[in-house]
Amino acid sequence: MAELAGFAANGGSGLYGYSRNSTFQRKAIEGAKELIDKAIAEKLEINDFSSTKAFQVADLGCSVGPNTFLAVQNIIDAIELKYKKCQGQSSSLQLPEFQVFFNDQISNDFNQLFTSLPPERRYYAMGMPGSFHGRLFPNGSLHFVHSSFSLQILSRVPNEVVDKSSPAWNKGRIHYTNSSDEVFRAYEAQYEKDMERFLNARAQEIVHGGLMALILPCCPNGKSHSEAFVNMTIDLLGSSLVDMARKGMISEEKVDSFNIPTFNASLSQVEAIVKRNGCFRIEILKSLPQEKPQPKVLSSTMRACMEGMIKQHFGYEILDELFDLLSKKFEESFSSSEPEIEISLFVLLKRKYNK
Amino acid sequence: MAELAGFAANGGSGLYGYSRNSTFQRKAIEGAKELIDKAIAEKLEINDFSSTKAFQVADLGCSVGPNTFLAVQNIIDAIELKYKKCQGQSSSLQLPEFQVFFNDQISNDFNQLFTSLPPERRYYAMGMPGSFHGRLFPNGSLHFVHSSFSLQILSRVPNEVVDKSSPAWNKGRIHYTNSSDEVFRAYEAQYEKDMERFLNARAQEIVHGGLMALILPCCPNGKSHSEAFVNMTIDLLGSSLVDMARKGMISEEKVDSFNIPTFNASLSQVEAIVKRNGCFRIEILKSLPQEKPQPKVLSSTMRACMEGMIKQHFGYEILDELFDLLSKKFEESFSSSEPEIEISLFVLLKRKYNK
Repeated sequence: MAELAGFAANGGSGLYGYSRNSTFQRKAIEGAKELIDKAIAEKLEINDFSSTKAFQVADLGCSVGPNTFLAVQNIIDAIELKYKKCQGQSSSLQLPEFQVFFNDQISNDFNQLFTSLPPERRYYAMGMPGSFHGRLFPNGSLHFVHSSFSLQILSRVPNEVVDKSSPAWNKGRIHYTNSSDEVFRAYEAQYEKDMERFLNARAQEIVHGGLMALILPCCPNGKSHSEAFVNMTIDLLGSSLVDMARKGMISEEKVDSFNIPTFNASLSQVEAIVKRNGCFRIEILKSLPQEKPQPKVLSSTMRACMEGMIKQHFGYEILDELFDLLSKKFEESFSSSEPEIEISLFVLLKRKYNK
Repeated sequence: MAELAGFAANGGSGLYGYSRNSTFQRKAIEGAKELIDKAIAEKLEINDFSSTKAFQVADLGCSVGPNTFLAVQNIIDAIELKYKKCQGQSSSLQLPEFQVFFNDQISNDFNQLFTSLPPERRYYAMGMPGSFHGRLFPNGSLHFVHSSFSLQILSRVPNEVVDKSSPAWNKGRIHYTNSSDEVFRAYEAQYEKDMERFLNARAQEIVHGGLMALILPCCPNGKSHSEAFVNMTIDLLGSSLVDMARKGMISEEKVDSFNIPTFNASLSQVEAIVKRNGCFRIEILKSLPQEKPQPKVLSSTMRACMEGMIKQHFGYEILDELFDLLSKKFEESFSSSEPEIEISLFVLLKRKYNK
């Protein structure tokens, strides 16, 4: 996840720990498996790396597992398969060793991550603390980068939305969903800036011909941002907080100054940002339809991801009531019979050779 | 440190945390600085690595800082200086980026390590959890390895010393110091086995021409193992435990089954092991004289390093009394006027080109 204080998922093995509340994200990783397999089979030019002794993989915004271990294993399995196929054509090709870097912000629970590393792994596992909006690795050192459900997190809340004197002041809301155009544009501008920094850093770190697979919660093309499922969930969190402020359980001012620093881009927004940056070629870009999660599961997932920053802003006491309320709102709002929805997108990028 | 459960130094920032109780080890690192500077200036063949874009450094058994950051900075400063000198002769030589791997066993407090990383560091910092008695890094990937006050820790307590039916059963003692020859030989055999595994693993990981600097608590040449200062400190810990057993505060059986898994080799033992292994050339091997630590400081240092394993075996309750008692024993035993003693040794190894 990102450098923003408090926006690390919950560590530990407790009831609301990320490791117990990340089925939703795991389903997206499983959905992406087939696409990653295909991408590695068809788009990875092993010959570019024939002198590589250690194939270096990074998972950016890995949190504490187990999803990251699943994602990494999928990638390594697919690369090994590709090498074995290529060895059929060129017997001199050696299967490389694998070195995997697990990255998340410094406040991530790396101790939990390390103690839960799969004992039977066939790779050297490293932890890399720091913000992926800046440089993390040496020049041209990575061959495959993966990041799932992390890149939507902004490096910061846009200044304007907490500035009372700004037309983008986000009074009574906690996100750009259903808010003013000014608020939306402030979020969008921050996202574009962050993505540009992210792509520039990765462009230096990934070898020419290397791949990057990103899974992001998204706004489906053709839908307004307020209709996107992920945005609606945040909006309901916002209205739960507003309800609690009305009941006097938290102050209205606290709600006004609280903003969730995420931006859920559409496919065409992602496409435009990557093209403008110019360092990567888009090999695959598509949405990942997914079963709509159950209200209780969804509420716990959001708690695992956002509890840290909510606690920091509003205090520990409100958590149980807030997420109970949110779970009820999910039940009321999402009871319709739409079993599969577009929650996330998958994009596979290849580092260009000539830039 | 090693894979042995419980033998990680104390994390956290508390009174007995390693970060507050490692002055003693820091002095050895400071003492070694000059030798490392000299070794890098004279023994590192930069031309061997001229195509290296990222110079890779590892600190094995790093604990939680701050000593590891000091050691790593010393190394990088010296390497940069060397590059700058060589650039005078060959203007095409590029200063590489630095990637530093901080290694310790999985139970080490990596969260504390990461949050205390120097903000102004000029290197990419990675954490590498796992036992240095086995493989940690890809083949030929490291250029400089450092390890300070860690390699004396055995991968396990030798089987025989806890086996009542063995002639090496270590009744009434917690170490080989002042114990029987059988106990000493069991410890020594374990140490030789562990060192052989360590050297073989590093021989695969370190590039040909790469350097490894090791600082180890030692038994000075010409002294018996029972006369070595570090061994005497452990012996006094043992006699403190025996005293407490006599007073009925802990059971005698518990003392019998407790053994500190460290071996403090002499210079000639280290020399023999490295030569037998054959993968490294000894460039420097010498003892590091050091000011004798104050009894209270020494007692806290030992507590920071050993509290984990003592707590696990005897329970939390005995800790304060045990280390008070130990501190008194240090005062009685070490009040003599011998200001400088040989506590540790420094060895600089170079990975051979031809094996």
